[in-house]
Amino acid sequence: MIKEEIRILGIDDGPFTKNDKEVIVIGVIFRGGEFLDGVLRTYVTVDGLDATEKLSKMINSSKHKQQLKVIMLDGITLGGFNIVDIKKLYSEVKIPIIVINRKPPDLNSIRIALEKNFDDFEKRWKMILNAGKINQIKLEKFSIYYQNIGIDNEEAEEIILISTRHAQIPEPLRVAHIIASGVVKGESEGHA
Amino acid sequence: MIKEEIRILGIDDGPFTKNDKEVIVIGVIFRGGEFLDGVLRTYVTVDGLDATEKLSKMINSSKHKQQLKVIMLDGITLGGFNIVDIKKLYSEVKIPIIVINRKPPDLNSIRIALEKNFDDFEKRWKMILNAGKINQIKLEKFSIYYQNIGIDNEEAEEIILISTRHAQIPEPLRVAHIIASGVVKGESEGHA
Repeated sequence: MIKEEIRILGIDDGPFTKNDKEVIVIGVIFRGGEFLDGVLRTYVTVDGLDATEKLSKMINSSKHKQQLKVIMLDGITLGGFNIVDIKKLYSEVKIPIIVINRKPPDLNSIRIALEKNFDDFEKRWKMILNAGKINQIKLEKFSIYYQNIGIDNEEAEEIILISTRHAQIPEPLRVAHIIASGVVKGESEGHA
Repeated sequence: MIKEEIRILGIDDGPFTKNDKEVIVIGVIFRGGEFLDGVLRTYVTVDGLDATEKLSKMINSSKHKQQLKVIMLDGITLGGFNIVDIKKLYSEVKIPIIVINRKPPDLNSIRIALEKNFDDFEKRWKMILNAGKINQIKLEKFSIYYQNIGIDNEEAEEIILISTRHAQIPEPLRVAHIIASGVVKGESEGHA
């Protein structure tokens, strides 16, 4: 049984153009689906390979860390193809991770894009496979696809249900998206 | 009777040092005290005189403007002594404004600080007087002091009551503070 006010860290990146070297990444600390408790901020390199390290530093240096029970990511890439190795991140922060996708990720297209654009595509592809099996949870009107590490499916699904309120995505990710896009563009974009 | 989900724009500035030329200002669009709907962002000059103009532009260019029913400010200064002339702001955006203070503002100290630090202190002092009478609303465990323009005391107090949930300050201002400080410092500071 998960507490309604479980502390969740939801992470999303801001919008960027191919001319930007870095992109802002916002972490919001949420009590369940209920309210905002804190905001973290870091930057990652567009199409770089520093996302795992930057998230690990941001989380491990936070004064909120002891209260955090789970981390949510909106997909496993930040700033283009800067892939989060969630196995490595989990080993460094020791907090369970749930990766949320609104559609089943099209792994074949991702592999083709990586091969086309990156000399180190095998390394990046391995990080994507590291994220593990994609599960599906059916809600009343839509499905959410997720990957999980450090937490079993039953608990992960309970947390997704508790925190999904106003959109087809859990509140910590909806709010992280609004903040990151609002700060970069001057006005936030629709919904995550 | 005010709707529980009335759209409120809560505005607060980020932390800054005397070496900073500009400071970030965050506007959060909230449904009552309930949840975040959007984020606006602008910058104002530290100790400058552009706060009124910058807020007016930020609000008038927002796609959310038609839905906004009231604006909340956390005091009438941003970025040090960059004073918001709320009479002028109201005439430019045509949305009622409530200025929130947790303590009764010490006008005498403000006047002395302005006289000491600004050649144009009379202009700034007049902007402060423009904010009008300071009212007090007693909640169960604490008081909130407020000034209001474009809205009567009864309605202003109803909005303050609807939106004050998790702290001694309405949610739109609590959340604007957390976002602005988190984005600037990498981690948000306590409560507003």
